[in-house]
Amino acid sequence: MEDSPQRALQGLGSFPWYVGGTQVLGLACVVITGVWMGSYHGGYAWDGSGQEFNVHPLCMVLGLVFLYGDAILVYRVFRNESKRNVKILHAVLHLLALIISIVGIVAVFDFHNHNKIPNMYSLHSWCGMLTFVLFCVQWLMGLGFFLFPGTLMALRSWYLPLHVFFGLAMLAMSLATCLLGISEKLFFSIQHTYSQFVAEGILGNMLGLLLVAFGILVGYVVTREDFRRPPHPEEEALSVHFKTLTEGGGSPTSP
Amino acid sequence: MEDSPQRALQGLGSFPWYVGGTQVLGLACVVITGVWMGSYHGGYAWDGSGQEFNVHPLCMVLGLVFLYGDAILVYRVFRNESKRNVKILHAVLHLLALIISIVGIVAVFDFHNHNKIPNMYSLHSWCGMLTFVLFCVQWLMGLGFFLFPGTLMALRSWYLPLHVFFGLAMLAMSLATCLLGISEKLFFSIQHTYSQFVAEGILGNMLGLLLVAFGILVGYVVTREDFRRPPHPEEEALSVHFKTLTEGGGSPTSP
Repeated sequence: MEDSPQRALQGLGSFPWYVGGTQVLGLACVVITGVWMGSYHGGYAWDGSGQEFNVHPLCMVLGLVFLYGDAILVYRVFRNESKRNVKILHAVLHLLALIISIVGIVAVFDFHNHNKIPNMYSLHSWCGMLTFVLFCVQWLMGLGFFLFPGTLMALRSWYLPLHVFFGLAMLAMSLATCLLGISEKLFFSIQHTYSQFVAEGILGNMLGLLLVAFGILVGYVVTREDFRRPPHPEEEALSVHFKTLTEGGGSPTSP
Repeated sequence: MEDSPQRALQGLGSFPWYVGGTQVLGLACVVITGVWMGSYHGGYAWDGSGQEFNVHPLCMVLGLVFLYGDAILVYRVFRNESKRNVKILHAVLHLLALIISIVGIVAVFDFHNHNKIPNMYSLHSWCGMLTFVLFCVQWLMGLGFFLFPGTLMALRSWYLPLHVFFGLAMLAMSLATCLLGISEKLFFSIQHTYSQFVAEGILGNMLGLLLVAFGILVGYVVTREDFRRPPHPEEEALSVHFKTLTEGGGSPTSP
């Protein structure tokens, strides 16, 4: 307690390792998904075949997991950059995530329609569509509330904690949807050998655990108190920094 | 900003509705799981049959979802009770959750062993076992750090934010494991009709969405700033309230 500044410095000393950990885990998830679909399921194409389906998991893990996680982390990584620039980077990364995930969703619908497989019947598809729709709503609301210059500060500070909470909740939903997708894919493709601990089953399960680890580490970095972006007085004065800092006594809802 | 106390009161005015919402959702999940296994899969028994398997989902949703969520919520619901009593209630609810989930895990292992089905090969089982082991570790550490009277305050305040973060992270893992379990059960039992939107498939999917809603609402109630337990000066003086309140400026890590 009495060595609070020292503790804060110690905390920031470990910060790069935590962020590095998120990147290693996130990239590992993307690479393993890519290799799984590439090596075990014949690679990628856009012709209605199984190879078009393979675009789906790769895009979703790249977009709604890795880029999504990184978009959340920019407020911690660029803690000393101008808030406006960080907000733009946050929005651009989310836009990239959105575009890539649209490609992934189109891929699976196109594959289903080509092969007369019904859409939207499984729990994976229900959770995924819900997450995607909420992600779009959150992106649009973030744009309107935080990047549109005319929005009232009172509205921004009302919406900010909701934006932060639902941002993390949707990352969790996105990860849960990936786990459902992995499980579905394994039951479809190795139904009779999955229980014999074949390599593909273990690969898929490992991917699932790595996704969980990525989510936990991103969540930890974003919510850990001494990793928060410090208040920048000049931004306060220029009203480009959200006002919640001055409302709650601390800055628990500051992104 | 200038009407902060009024805002806080407004916030607390809606508090019972949010808590009521968690209870309605949580109970709905338990009841739907019970009815699903009861009506579609022949009810409950302890004889190695499919009815013994049915004990598994019911116990896991009751223990590692509903009771777990309620154990987390006690710090908000009993915001004006003695901290010591609330801590004991928190530990007892978690102990109940632990016992019920052990019954649920024994049920599925016993069912598998009776029917020569391999254990621990699926992503559901990997995520579930990881969650259960972490839950046990967290429970024991919580007991040692917060209920054992000899633990140093410095250790308590170091561990508290980790306990709070991993408590919520494990609830999310528990919910994700339930979704995987629902999906697995549906693919095992209605593999050929799931895509035709049969009643059982829709029931299972709805249960999944209700579990997601329960998790989001519990997470929201627990992390919302104006729902936090107010600092009780007499507890501070008696050292039964965690010291982190005085460390961060706010009380973001206070349970």
